[in-house]
Amino acid sequence: MLKTRFTELLGIQHPIVQGGMQWVGRAELASAVSNAGGLGILTGLTQPTPQALKDEIARCRQMTAKPFGVNLTILPSLKPIPHDEYAQAIIDSDIKIVETAGSNPAKYIGMFKQAGVKVLHKCTAVRHALTAERHGADVISIDGFECAGHPGEDDVPNQILIPACVDKVKIPVIASGGFADGRGLAMALAMGAEGINMGTRFMATKEAPIHANVKQKIAEAGERDTALIFRSLRNTSRVFKNKIAEEVVRIEREKGPAMKIDDVAHLVSGARGRTVYEEGDTDLGIWSAGMVVGLIHDVPSCQELVSRIVREAEEIIRGRLEKMIA
Amino acid sequence: MLKTRFTELLGIQHPIVQGGMQWVGRAELASAVSNAGGLGILTGLTQPTPQALKDEIARCRQMTAKPFGVNLTILPSLKPIPHDEYAQAIIDSDIKIVETAGSNPAKYIGMFKQAGVKVLHKCTAVRHALTAERHGADVISIDGFECAGHPGEDDVPNQILIPACVDKVKIPVIASGGFADGRGLAMALAMGAEGINMGTRFMATKEAPIHANVKQKIAEAGERDTALIFRSLRNTSRVFKNKIAEEVVRIEREKGPAMKIDDVAHLVSGARGRTVYEEGDTDLGIWSAGMVVGLIHDVPSCQELVSRIVREAEEIIRGRLEKMIA
Repeated sequence: MLKTRFTELLGIQHPIVQGGMQWVGRAELASAVSNAGGLGILTGLTQPTPQALKDEIARCRQMTAKPFGVNLTILPSLKPIPHDEYAQAIIDSDIKIVETAGSNPAKYIGMFKQAGVKVLHKCTAVRHALTAERHGADVISIDGFECAGHPGEDDVPNQILIPACVDKVKIPVIASGGFADGRGLAMALAMGAEGINMGTRFMATKEAPIHANVKQKIAEAGERDTALIFRSLRNTSRVFKNKIAEEVVRIEREKGPAMKIDDVAHLVSGARGRTVYEEGDTDLGIWSAGMVVGLIHDVPSCQELVSRIVREAEEIIRGRLEKMIA
Repeated sequence: MLKTRFTELLGIQHPIVQGGMQWVGRAELASAVSNAGGLGILTGLTQPTPQALKDEIARCRQMTAKPFGVNLTILPSLKPIPHDEYAQAIIDSDIKIVETAGSNPAKYIGMFKQAGVKVLHKCTAVRHALTAERHGADVISIDGFECAGHPGEDDVPNQILIPACVDKVKIPVIASGGFADGRGLAMALAMGAEGINMGTRFMATKEAPIHANVKQKIAEAGERDTALIFRSLRNTSRVFKNKIAEEVVRIEREKGPAMKIDDVAHLVSGARGRTVYEEGDTDLGIWSAGMVVGLIHDVPSCQELVSRIVREAEEIIRGRLEKMIA
């Protein structure tokens, strides 16, 4: 057992969070992580409507008696998303922990705080962490360059970003991006974080509601098997380096800063990403994966995984670090 | 005191190395780091001739009785460099620790091993670490995306690279790039490394033989104040983001993969980088700096710095990590 400011604040057993993941963060996974003593999180916008999210929350409650959270990500999108209604659905469902992410979270942090919800704000830069803290966030989930999905445009890895953030904000910080094992947890705690958030690692678990082929691909991949796309659109995203991602990279290199989303829209539609998870053809669409695929070699249950990470971190502290002190 | 496989192997007090740095790694700095109980390293090619390197080694010996090393970096250069003669000068000077870096080190690792020299090979990829181990290197100094100078082309940060490397090689690994304080040392040890290598942090010390303005600039900079240049030449380099670096980045973005070194040669000559260090106008030329500038806020002596880092790491292990175990 590792106790931190974060586990105390949220009343959870282990300082391990399963962060929001589009198409992946459903009740099967969130409940399994919470049952394992971590914090599972449903991805709000994976549900097609606010009502569907309410139903998913109810379904998750039937699968775990432990606390879980809901993610609400505010990013620009082609068709407008009723974020307010999703936020209200979360509050109406009596959810007590929310992970916000994306741009301008002030309004939603305010809404959630007023409803007595604890807010973890995920962001990729110290200046954004300070803004979220000022607006009332309870925890910062700082997300390094290593991460799957949106690392921002600064390219600062966690080794620098965690201590830089911890030095500036007063609320607890958890570290996100690049975590898969007890070494990562011990590292994050050593650098001043109070816990870790994992995405890609939880995709390769028995309970993750995605096709077994995707899990297998993650378990086999090396640390050089991700790619950054959309840098030229200032909407950088880290994805698994399959044939489609390589084609997007090629077009992006060729067109340079003049690239428009229309140049690659046929390759990157969200629907195709979802189909990868459902049908298991990992070359069919763009899908997010962090560099940490290089440290993932198996597909355990969430219970096995969470227990192992905590045990490894304890062994590192007691069996390795302490013994180095002469 | 922190004892690791690395300190035992080299017979040094603290698991902290001051890595090779062009124009910076002279006797003043290397001797100060070794006197502080770390491992100071002279930069071989900073000396204009093999004989000048012999003289510099002799000068360093007058400044410290403790072990220090010499760096020999093998990189493509416009005018040919007599690497063999530098290697022979190192051996003839009875140096017992060498840091190799750059491409195809097999020949030099062989030469040094035959002369009874311990070889630390610095590299930026697990596959290169395995090659160096096969050729007889004693220690791998694995260098993450965060680092100053040449991070390679894979962009894998230390959070992923250290454990990925430790899992594959059998010889001790030290971690390089992004280190400045006890949090970094504790992090590296937690991830399986046996020590750390620092460059930028040692530039901002009293003894570093560079202009005070450069040290001040490092102490004031934030984690977003470095830039990557020469990606299009596949010779990526992380440098301080001054006006000249921004101009190179602009030209590189404009020309894309078609950029030639001639397009920017007037901006990036090594002589101008050297002049920055000598004259202190930090906007005059391109000079290397790691992202860790964002964690550096002072200009201590090497003795103060090394002691502080070790003390902080011990406090993190005993005062923070151990207390989290419930």
